[in-house]
Amino acid sequence: MRRASPSRSPAEGSIGLVEPRIAHFEEPFELQCRETLPGFDLVYETYGELDEIRGNAVLVCHALSGDHHAAGYHSPEDAKPGWWDTCIGPGKPIDTTKFFVVSLNNLGGCNGSTGPRTVDPDIGEPYGERFPTVTVKDWVKSQAMLADVLGISRFAAVIGGSLGGMQALQWAIDFPDRIAHAVVIAAAAKLSAQNIAFNEIARQAIQADPEFHEGRYHQANAIPRKGLMLARMVGHVTYLSDDSMGDRFGRELKSGDIGSAQDVQFQVESYLHYQGTSFSERFDANTYLLMTRALDYFDPALEFEGDLVRVLAGTQAKFLVLSFLSDWRFSPARSDEIVDALIEARKDVVSAKIDAPHGHDSFLLPNERYFDVLGGYLDAVARGGSST
Amino acid sequence: MRRASPSRSPAEGSIGLVEPRIAHFEEPFELQCRETLPGFDLVYETYGELDEIRGNAVLVCHALSGDHHAAGYHSPEDAKPGWWDTCIGPGKPIDTTKFFVVSLNNLGGCNGSTGPRTVDPDIGEPYGERFPTVTVKDWVKSQAMLADVLGISRFAAVIGGSLGGMQALQWAIDFPDRIAHAVVIAAAAKLSAQNIAFNEIARQAIQADPEFHEGRYHQANAIPRKGLMLARMVGHVTYLSDDSMGDRFGRELKSGDIGSAQDVQFQVESYLHYQGTSFSERFDANTYLLMTRALDYFDPALEFEGDLVRVLAGTQAKFLVLSFLSDWRFSPARSDEIVDALIEARKDVVSAKIDAPHGHDSFLLPNERYFDVLGGYLDAVARGGSST
Repeated sequence: MRRASPSRSPAEGSIGLVEPRIAHFEEPFELQCRETLPGFDLVYETYGELDEIRGNAVLVCHALSGDHHAAGYHSPEDAKPGWWDTCIGPGKPIDTTKFFVVSLNNLGGCNGSTGPRTVDPDIGEPYGERFPTVTVKDWVKSQAMLADVLGISRFAAVIGGSLGGMQALQWAIDFPDRIAHAVVIAAAAKLSAQNIAFNEIARQAIQADPEFHEGRYHQANAIPRKGLMLARMVGHVTYLSDDSMGDRFGRELKSGDIGSAQDVQFQVESYLHYQGTSFSERFDANTYLLMTRALDYFDPALEFEGDLVRVLAGTQAKFLVLSFLSDWRFSPARSDEIVDALIEARKDVVSAKIDAPHGHDSFLLPNERYFDVLGGYLDAVARGGSST
Repeated sequence: MRRASPSRSPAEGSIGLVEPRIAHFEEPFELQCRETLPGFDLVYETYGELDEIRGNAVLVCHALSGDHHAAGYHSPEDAKPGWWDTCIGPGKPIDTTKFFVVSLNNLGGCNGSTGPRTVDPDIGEPYGERFPTVTVKDWVKSQAMLADVLGISRFAAVIGGSLGGMQALQWAIDFPDRIAHAVVIAAAAKLSAQNIAFNEIARQAIQADPEFHEGRYHQANAIPRKGLMLARMVGHVTYLSDDSMGDRFGRELKSGDIGSAQDVQFQVESYLHYQGTSFSERFDANTYLLMTRALDYFDPALEFEGDLVRVLAGTQAKFLVLSFLSDWRFSPARSDEIVDALIEARKDVVSAKIDAPHGHDSFLLPNERYFDVLGGYLDAVARGGSST
């Protein structure tokens, strides 16, 4: 199986220029938390063509800080393509010559879909901290409504990494007849105490920032930059493996004289500052809180007394479950829990552990075996159509 | 070999009531950063009796947030004994019926030794953020001066975990004829990029707190509580293993209804808040910055072009190197680097990897095999005297 190498420019193996669209939903939308939104928008992009029988649609679900712009470029001047451009495009694992790919910004996001930055029609100012809690289940429900708008009655596959993988799993549970394949990458059936603890540190960092103003920073004309920077730093360090950070930065010094031990700065520190600062310029703090809470709450087995086998018993999708050996935040053992429960529930599941060095971030990065397994699986899906 | 079980009360296996003392040093003390302190105090405790030939002295070095109060009680009303009371006392691994144990608060600390809280005699207010950078090498030099005051020309053993283990290693390097045994527990010859990154997150959390006032919080009559709390939370989560956090907290809810997803709090969050808050009441922020910097800078091989074998070639001590399988911040692989270099340098080294579940914190907690190995090694040291 020959696969195009990761694209370097819009011209090479890229879907090229893409344009976001907005779907308006005017009906009241009841959330799992029992609050109701008077309506909402979802911003989304599509790549490739929907076939005649509307059987080749693939939904890509984003993780904590992702959005709808997964592939291609918004303008020829863009410095970077979408966040999963290495994986989505003509000849790539999620092959746009075969699939009609749908990618959206989730409800509660900060890149165009209804979220804390949206003006609450009732009071004429942004929802901010009053935006209701959203869950993975809510997202999946809203994604099914988007599918209706696009005329997609059943996805050939729902695909996601990390929090995105949790959405793929929830799809299989909540809409068993609307999903042929669930591709669950670097995810878990629920977070561990350590995962929750890291999320809580990130939330505390944001909330402790005086510029947060208890979530009303918009009204105060402020941005909790330092809190967001810290939150991103925590995420960054825990999403990378120790080895990959070592390979990239080692203990190289950025400045200073270790003999005098004054003003020494290691490369890894300046990298983290840069990453954290740039994140704080683009991401909304209230959305960050919402997204990490959605991660924490995710536990589809909860209403089945924690029995994952029972909750998966009702699924009809076939599953591909992928994990990465160097990922210590969502380790292969967590994926094994899903695989074992699927086997016990007598479901059709293929799984692989990929030897990639980049920790949890591996799910975002090109890797030959990863792309071969994912691309090979999806090739078979494309050949079989949505009834596979 | 029979060993007393960890003590539950001052009466049982405890050294009992102890009293801190202070050693004054009036000569100027030049630090590795080339700044000079006009003199300094070290607060310390001793447990057990120095034998006639002054050959049974053991130095215990503390880690990031430790102090001189390692064992026993300051008053019968104390709720808790010293930080390593499970390990130090009559019949315990560091057996006070055999050894004269010295434990001090390091220079730059905040519990009685000269540090940022000390009044700078030149200007009549606390050093605060102006306290010079201290390194592991500086600590070891000052500890040797304390040994002189106590009439100890050579330690039977220098023992420490984590940052304390680094001091034991530095002792063997800097004072080869003053240390018979170095016990290096859960340490590393230098930090990894990931380690430095976690320390930098903790520092950023402190420095981003507006109550930090660029280190001049004493003058502003403030305490950067939130920053210290966050720093402690990062430490806590990374010092524990995922499994031990899971065993202890799982995903148990403290409050809230996950169905409504409002005000949900997991047990692990409330535990972290409690730990972080209590730490912020007792620890000094500038000391925290100094201590984490000492960790980052530690790299004794640096002046030997990174060749650990060469720097260890000059040591004369025998080594016990211990690590813990669940410790992912200072993993057994990092201890192996020390062991391998010692073997290559043809030094006498014993090592063990302990299967304890508590991550990096395992070095502080009682564990049968850990205490058997440590106690057995030190029994042999006691039988052989300091010339072993």
